[in-house]
Amino acid sequence: MRKVAIVGVGHTPFSFLAEKTVVELFSEAAMEAIISSDLKAKDIKAMFVGNVLGDFSEGQGMVQSFAADEIGAKNIPASRFEGACASGTMAIRDAFMWVASGFYDIVIAGGVDTTSKMGTALGTRTFAMFTDSHYEYPSGLTFPGAFGMLCHLYSVKYGVPLAKLKRQMALVSVQSHKYGQYNKLGQLHNEVTVDEVLSSAMVTSPLQLYDCCPFSDGAAAIVLASEEAARKLTDEPVYITGVGQASSGRYSSQKEYLPRLRARDISVKQAYDMAGIKPEDVDICELHDCFSIASIIAVESLGFAEFGHGGELWENGEADIRGRIPINMSGGLKSKGHPIGATGASQVCDIVKQMRGAVEAQRQVEDVKIGLTDTLGGDGIICNLVLEKGW
Amino acid sequence: MRKVAIVGVGHTPFSFLAEKTVVELFSEAAMEAIISSDLKAKDIKAMFVGNVLGDFSEGQGMVQSFAADEIGAKNIPASRFEGACASGTMAIRDAFMWVASGFYDIVIAGGVDTTSKMGTALGTRTFAMFTDSHYEYPSGLTFPGAFGMLCHLYSVKYGVPLAKLKRQMALVSVQSHKYGQYNKLGQLHNEVTVDEVLSSAMVTSPLQLYDCCPFSDGAAAIVLASEEAARKLTDEPVYITGVGQASSGRYSSQKEYLPRLRARDISVKQAYDMAGIKPEDVDICELHDCFSIASIIAVESLGFAEFGHGGELWENGEADIRGRIPINMSGGLKSKGHPIGATGASQVCDIVKQMRGAVEAQRQVEDVKIGLTDTLGGDGIICNLVLEKGW
Repeated sequence: MRKVAIVGVGHTPFSFLAEKTVVELFSEAAMEAIISSDLKAKDIKAMFVGNVLGDFSEGQGMVQSFAADEIGAKNIPASRFEGACASGTMAIRDAFMWVASGFYDIVIAGGVDTTSKMGTALGTRTFAMFTDSHYEYPSGLTFPGAFGMLCHLYSVKYGVPLAKLKRQMALVSVQSHKYGQYNKLGQLHNEVTVDEVLSSAMVTSPLQLYDCCPFSDGAAAIVLASEEAARKLTDEPVYITGVGQASSGRYSSQKEYLPRLRARDISVKQAYDMAGIKPEDVDICELHDCFSIASIIAVESLGFAEFGHGGELWENGEADIRGRIPINMSGGLKSKGHPIGATGASQVCDIVKQMRGAVEAQRQVEDVKIGLTDTLGGDGIICNLVLEKGW
Repeated sequence: MRKVAIVGVGHTPFSFLAEKTVVELFSEAAMEAIISSDLKAKDIKAMFVGNVLGDFSEGQGMVQSFAADEIGAKNIPASRFEGACASGTMAIRDAFMWVASGFYDIVIAGGVDTTSKMGTALGTRTFAMFTDSHYEYPSGLTFPGAFGMLCHLYSVKYGVPLAKLKRQMALVSVQSHKYGQYNKLGQLHNEVTVDEVLSSAMVTSPLQLYDCCPFSDGAAAIVLASEEAARKLTDEPVYITGVGQASSGRYSSQKEYLPRLRARDISVKQAYDMAGIKPEDVDICELHDCFSIASIIAVESLGFAEFGHGGELWENGEADIRGRIPINMSGGLKSKGHPIGATGASQVCDIVKQMRGAVEAQRQVEDVKIGLTDTLGGDGIICNLVLEKGW
């Protein structure tokens, strides 16, 4: 298989109640990615779009087909991917294969959603469709509820007192806002303190308001090209050297693993093995912090901390900008926002910009050569990508 | 790229108001495909599922992840594809690439929907999301409306008097029911006459009830394998030798082509060129007859008739079982039913069975070596597959 490079990236602002539609938002991100790749829309041979709720938020299905037409990439194959919050990464992983195989030289992939248009309450209920709707949801389970239960399970299983865990979780949110405030494309630009997190409104015990990411609208896209095509277009290609994906089914079917997600263990191993790297080789990571506890659970399976010790990365500054493994320097889902289908693509965009030294100075990590993205969808689809600086 | 074969197929009954859920239906089709391939679920390395409305009909998103878990294909990558009615074919085309590239040896692909659970009125309104929801749908456009207008346009553009066109359309439905009555897995088992079609209830002028396919519930799946793996599993591999996909955007953006769909011209050319065949080489075709007029429009772009002369295939018996190009011997969407995400996969299943001499005697075409599937999604995603008998 051929090497596949990211040539250009595009990213709309993430916001609450965007005025634009899903088709318009994705088109905006796509055109930025295409123009910054020194290409025209007609050079794009296929489109891969993660979109979860365009049909629910705007009554618009099949957004990819309309977006391809909108940007002038007439008649190209355009596919929509849905794996809940992992949809954008799923679309990129799939686009990777169509280029790696030699079928296409230049394609575009990314994601979009306008989830905030449903409001937080309806959005939360709607999004509960990505649990098992016949056994889990009727018991009252929504995703805040599920992650609340994972907190309690984590505390018991690893013997971390809940008060200590909650302080670690607060530190996760504090760091996300600390860097997210500088991300011009992010949604929230306020700093928060540990005390503010711990005194914010209770959402679902023990998760409080500042443990939870917001609903957001936005889009992100990247242009992928074969190595040969990429070298003609940019001096700064970022290679996708590892891809991983796995699924878990409903929570009850993975109860012997929880709070650890079996799909993440498998997915990230695929990505690391394919790239030929180990966790300690990773210079930066954007991971799926839909809730603060999710970050702590994630870093353990990603190999950055022992199981039961994830929170210490934030206590010790190891996840900070000059730490061992800087995490979510974009602000993460918590501060940058979480337009569901766009999130995975946004993670990729930010790591590419980090490698190019192109993010705001206050959140720029020095000398990023290898990056990892981690996206979690619903009850347990995980997608991981390893990105490597190519110059 | 490697050759890719279909090893086994699975197909639930298509019905109105199935008792099973989307996850259960897809699992049933998947297990039949796996068992008939002499495999176990653990041999399947990835799953690709077309599903359009699981979230609307049952409040179940991400059906693929739960289905993979349900059948015991634990933790495999499972992706959902949405391109309206073309979703199932889109999933198969994508699965093809993951095997052709050498990444996976054995995967499963297919589709499922339980559209009828919404009822015809709500289903029609919901499905209108696959037109442009900001410009087209608010004008009152649903898909019966769109195809009704295409009838009038066809009549005017090609100078076929509407009365003549309506009789040709009726012949399409008559033939679909003629063969569909024998398809044990189909939804409708009654024969209809031209007079019955032309005296059935008016839906949207000039489309009458028997010009329209029903809403249906059901699933279909196929196991795809590399040539090497397939040869160990079956003496009757069916190769996918050509794939095509294209999109059109909203109807208004393709108005210079209509009633011809530009995406179909492009998609089928990709598939024919890749397979190295011409339309006259095709022995059997399953095409997207969501409305009777859709069949007439389709055969022209597929190269089976001159533009403006599609209906003559049914007038002259050329589309019949012993004709030049037997079409929709399964009963098509009209008689077999149309569980949206499953339709493309169902087309593939039926052609594989035709090649294996495994369909009901009354609808078995002799000596099928090359088959073509054609699936249309929403405002204009088209997917085509060329299948070739490998023994």
